[in-house]
Amino acid sequence: MPRHSVRDVIVETALGEFHRIGYAACSVDTITRAAGVPKGSFYNHFRSKEELAVEVVAKYAAQAEWHGVTDPELTPLAKLRAQFRVMADVFVGNGHTRGCMIGNMGEELADHSEPMRAQVRASLSGWAEDIAATLRAAREAGELTVDADPDVLGRFVLDAWEGALLRAKAVKNDQPVEDFFTTVFVHLLR
Amino acid sequence: MPRHSVRDVIVETALGEFHRIGYAACSVDTITRAAGVPKGSFYNHFRSKEELAVEVVAKYAAQAEWHGVTDPELTPLAKLRAQFRVMADVFVGNGHTRGCMIGNMGEELADHSEPMRAQVRASLSGWAEDIAATLRAAREAGELTVDADPDVLGRFVLDAWEGALLRAKAVKNDQPVEDFFTTVFVHLLR
Repeated sequence: MPRHSVRDVIVETALGEFHRIGYAACSVDTITRAAGVPKGSFYNHFRSKEELAVEVVAKYAAQAEWHGVTDPELTPLAKLRAQFRVMADVFVGNGHTRGCMIGNMGEELADHSEPMRAQVRASLSGWAEDIAATLRAAREAGELTVDADPDVLGRFVLDAWEGALLRAKAVKNDQPVEDFFTTVFVHLLR
Repeated sequence: MPRHSVRDVIVETALGEFHRIGYAACSVDTITRAAGVPKGSFYNHFRSKEELAVEVVAKYAAQAEWHGVTDPELTPLAKLRAQFRVMADVFVGNGHTRGCMIGNMGEELADHSEPMRAQVRASLSGWAEDIAATLRAAREAGELTVDADPDVLGRFVLDAWEGALLRAKAVKNDQPVEDFFTTVFVHLLR
């Protein structure tokens, strides 16, 4: 019977390794070595590296710091800004490396793995719907008056965020993230 | 003496293969087989796969369909929209695969290859400056009245575009690109 502790340590280790070096560059051997478990034990728990990676992306999306912003005193737009700020702080704390694992896996694998494509789509979609719900609350509260569809805006804002993290990996400074905050929260969500 | 034709065929083939399957998944062997040249000839022309990839990204940025929109009758914002439309058409024509090679290489390699990071930064920066110049012309022409820094807007619009192509690879439809056109050209650049 698979021991859950070995499985968990593989998932946790893979989350770190896939995020750090990417999917193709990270072998099952890389993961089992880093996890300190026998390579053979991997296949007691996962049929393939792909199956593991899909589970890792789902876990990454579910545990994102995003969900930790729950202060009921915040207005909807202030909450949204705080959510992006906490994500930005994690990224800056990593020295402008790694970016968003959902974005990384999507860029690398969406054309080549149907299970990963479906997981990336689901994770992005869930996140965009979360943003859209906040935008609807902002409109309800009179904070958002721009005559735009909150669903379209929610998806667009998420795309702009993913693009900002991508450029930040290349420039290795805060400029892309600050461009995002200025443009989204001053000029777009008005 | 290296034959230029072999070098050119390696660069052209690598552009297609890196775009199609990514950097790590594409070996020197993959490229030389696809190019129909002896594997040994590769190292007469390039020190490494990395050196080739950096040259490929520079070539991709320089030859992008973007530069083909030169109709002098277009207003600055109409020109910008036409430039993104021609890029979108290429992407849709590829069946929503591949995305932007600059974005792909940035996601995959910016943390791991200093020469690639520098090339991706330079390519994105050149493109963002091109957009900013058009936005300044739009302001000059009275087409753009939003009180935002054209340089910030130019970088942000490019990031949003890269993010839209990323999501489009996952959803495999036009929605992300249309979200981009609606939000950028109706609600942001006003």
